[in-house]
Amino acid sequence: MTKSNFGRFFEDFRVGQTLRHATPRTITSGDAALYLALTGSRYALFCADPFAQACGLSAAPVDPLLAFHLVFGKSVPDISLNAVANLGYADGRFLRTVQVGDTLRAESEVIGLKETSNGKTGVVYVRSRGLNQREELVLEFVRWVMVNKRDASASPPAPLTPELPTAVTADRLSAPEGLSGRGYDFDLGGSPFGYEDYAIGERIDHVDGTTVEEAEHQIATRLYQNTAKVHFDGLAQASSRFGRRLIYGGVAMSIARALAFNGLANAAAMLAINGGRHVNPLFAGDTVYAWSAVLDKADLSASLGALRLRLVALKNKPATGFPDKDPEGAYDPAVILDVDYWAAIPKRG
Amino acid sequence: MTKSNFGRFFEDFRVGQTLRHATPRTITSGDAALYLALTGSRYALFCADPFAQACGLSAAPVDPLLAFHLVFGKSVPDISLNAVANLGYADGRFLRTVQVGDTLRAESEVIGLKETSNGKTGVVYVRSRGLNQREELVLEFVRWVMVNKRDASASPPAPLTPELPTAVTADRLSAPEGLSGRGYDFDLGGSPFGYEDYAIGERIDHVDGTTVEEAEHQIATRLYQNTAKVHFDGLAQASSRFGRRLIYGGVAMSIARALAFNGLANAAAMLAINGGRHVNPLFAGDTVYAWSAVLDKADLSASLGALRLRLVALKNKPATGFPDKDPEGAYDPAVILDVDYWAAIPKRG
Amino acid sequence: MTKSNFGRFFEDFRVGQTLRHATPRTITSGDAALYLALTGSRYALFCADPFAQACGLSAAPVDPLLAFHLVFGKSVPDISLNAVANLGYADGRFLRTVQVGDTLRAESEVIGLKETSNGKTGVVYVRSRGLNQREELVLEFVRWVMVNKRDASASPPAPLTPELPTAVTADRLSAPEGLSGRGYDFDLGGSPFGYEDYAIGERIDHVDGTTVEEAEHQIATRLYQNTAKVHFDGLAQASSRFGRRLIYGGVAMSIARALAFNGLANAAAMLAINGGRHVNPLFAGDTVYAWSAVLDKADLSASLGALRLRLVALKNKPATGFPDKDPEGAYDPAVILDVDYWAAIPKRG
Repeated sequence: MTKSNFGRFFEDFRVGQTLRHATPRTITSGDAALYLALTGSRYALFCADPFAQACGLSAAPVDPLLAFHLVFGKSVPDISLNAVANLGYADGRFLRTVQVGDTLRAESEVIGLKETSNGKTGVVYVRSRGLNQREELVLEFVRWVMVNKRDASASPPAPLTPELPTAVTADRLSAPEGLSGRGYDFDLGGSPFGYEDYAIGERIDHVDGTTVEEAEHQIATRLYQNTAKVHFDGLAQASSRFGRRLIYGGVAMSIARALAFNGLANAAAMLAINGGRHVNPLFAGDTVYAWSAVLDKADLSASLGALRLRLVALKNKPATGFPDKDPEGAYDPAVILDVDYWAAIPKRG
Repeated sequence: MTKSNFGRFFEDFRVGQTLRHATPRTITSGDAALYLALTGSRYALFCADPFAQACGLSAAPVDPLLAFHLVFGKSVPDISLNAVANLGYADGRFLRTVQVGDTLRAESEVIGLKETSNGKTGVVYVRSRGLNQREELVLEFVRWVMVNKRDASASPPAPLTPELPTAVTADRLSAPEGLSGRGYDFDLGGSPFGYEDYAIGERIDHVDGTTVEEAEHQIATRLYQNTAKVHFDGLAQASSRFGRRLIYGGVAMSIARALAFNGLANAAAMLAINGGRHVNPLFAGDTVYAWSAVLDKADLSASLGALRLRLVALKNKPATGFPDKDPEGAYDPAVILDVDYWAAIPKRG
Repeated sequence: MTKSNFGRFFEDFRVGQTLRHATPRTITSGDAALYLALTGSRYALFCADPFAQACGLSAAPVDPLLAFHLVFGKSVPDISLNAVANLGYADGRFLRTVQVGDTLRAESEVIGLKETSNGKTGVVYVRSRGLNQREELVLEFVRWVMVNKRDASASPPAPLTPELPTAVTADRLSAPEGLSGRGYDFDLGGSPFGYEDYAIGERIDHVDGTTVEEAEHQIATRLYQNTAKVHFDGLAQASSRFGRRLIYGGVAMSIARALAFNGLANAAAMLAINGGRHVNPLFAGDTVYAWSAVLDKADLSASLGALRLRLVALKNKPATGFPDKDPEGAYDPAVILDVDYWAAIPKRG
């Protein structure tokens, strides 16, 4: 029997199956430092213990997206090694902060299967979960991927498409335990704007741009222990349809969130990912820009609110003018990522 | 009102104004490891706790230049986002060691303003300070930058050029508290030479060279949370006068200091930056070399002295022959950096 | 007297001489995080404290190869700065685990010298040792390098070629103190296969490939504080026989070991390096693949065994088909590395 993992094919998944993923990971300050250095994130809440303590936390947690990528990465060898496409995300929730010293492990439950009409591939829906060393649920999200069949003639399973919420409703949001906006220092936060200052419909140009190098996305993706070969194997990719390595979509997401500091500096804590789509591939040498739109607002507590934000990342086109979909719904070709999420933000009070 | 920061223009500065910069930062061993891996620094004092303890410190501090870059980086969004040029440094002093676990925040006081003769730009002088979690002054330095005016027709402020010392005098140097040369192990330090062995006027070829990659300087500059777009936005830089991304001058300084280990291995602890100038830009693909000259010496204690050193960094030309200014004062075109600083060094005793 | 180190020449070595190397290093979680991010290693034992504790250890140790590279790196300025070639390794043993917080220093004893027949170079044999802060031996290995003579006419020392074992015999293997296979979770380990499942003679294709960038190998090699100029000085290398920077052989070794996770996920703990050879140079832009062969097996305890493995790394050629030596002993030109080592692996029980 072969010792190597060549990845599961569509036929290898069963609805209800739970896969425990390899390589639990104790999160260290080394991981957090690398995350900052690779993404350019500057949210004060994740950078300074005294700042986080003034906001009611025991220490600075790591960026929720770092935890997300670690859980995602662990799921790759079991879920998406033979994936043709990462189709979408839904119902992502960040339920507990992750501190340096916590250990994350990941598991995924198969919640839907649907063969595609050509019979060569199928869509696999999984709910992936990150659990800490106390087996507490830290985060969860649904993603669905198109996976190759091993044998096109294999008969398909009964199709099951899970019902997924279009957005996490405000009552299902969990602000980090203890987090308060009361001790928040807006100078150190990096912007004078709080919950009250953002209006539904408002759009924000994040101004800055950053060019991505092969070494940068590879180092980040290995930090997340995501092994999808499209990100690393330049020789194999040379004969792929793109002709080159593809940057992990999570790298684009983290860079866009880091750019969003310029305009949303106090909206550090992601609470939920309502949905997300990698619209176009990102390659080394491309320059990423981003803009956001405020989709909704929700009261969380006397000192905290939440903004529902749409984050649009672009390649090789500044965000001035907010490049978007045309009236027919076709994206501007510069759009690489369109994510809908909730983040907590302090009130000015 | 726009939520994004497009940077201050010359008109936005007032003498006496103090700007508290965003994103305090708890320094971790992750930051220190990245600093080593990105610069190639090998000074034993910053690498090993038992070594630092034998020298009287409680643990290995982080390299003073890492603290310097963090403070500098934090000042960029408030001071130099619209800077045309970083003109110089003066009166830089390292007053307290930074240990893993310390939190640094930064602030800058505007100490001078002077419109340039063409009326389109002005020079802004700031004294930037790094403070730890006990609000103790960790380091400070003056820098001055040429900043664009928003409106060339705006009337200039009363010109004020601060008086700055040409060098930090020896009586104003602070050796790290507790540091002694008595327990110093010269084998582990990496060189048999101590304070007594260096002569004023002596020049040292640091021999080694290192080629810098885009990914390396970007990762370092993001580690310092310096957001100046010239370092990151390859698309915007393509239409700049250089046609490409410019490497943050602090990256050149740290690489040169790391190269200086070969010849100055025991002069780890920088005490002051007397002055510094980025003579020419450094780009990815360039190879950096460096040489030093001993400018002065000062007794610090029975077991420690200080060397005043001139550190000259070069690109694409080895330091053999000590490329320098010509008799008219024009620099060899290979020179990228000319820094004048003090460093502590143990006596052989 | 020159303050700079230009490296020892063949005439500068004496049999019996012990060189204490510079820059002891306190290993931090930052080093461990960088090691993961630069190599792609996923062995659970080195990633998660609770996993390591379930296996009887106090915490997750760092990858033995990280410790190896640190010791190797420290030896470079004293041993191989003027080396023409790194000829081989033998008798490498990992004797104690290295935990975050441990401090490593290194020393090398000259155990053999032999001038080469052309009189221009000589082979230097050293036994290098890594010692922790308690002066306990952590690891040791023999390596031999061809070093330039300063003066071809200098008379050679009495030739001494040390006797070296072709492999570390099983009775000389030290499993990490306390390590047990009893609490081992094979799901989290990443593979269902234990000691019993591997057969002598079996070959394993590690499937995945990874392209190496200049920034990646330079960051890794600086992390190890290895200063050999062939890895960093692009300008000097442009006129070398390769015309470009050469990747440190240890980078290839670590990448190959990381790839070996896919097929040998539970064989995390390297116990010995029996021998190794860098068959061909690796350059930035090359894609690395690897395969392994099981050479031998040894019982360690009721719950642990050891596999003697041959790890063959390739460039720009997948490992399918197991490219190897031809019947005359000439290597396939894709082979870059051929290492023979022992690793511990839990029994399924």
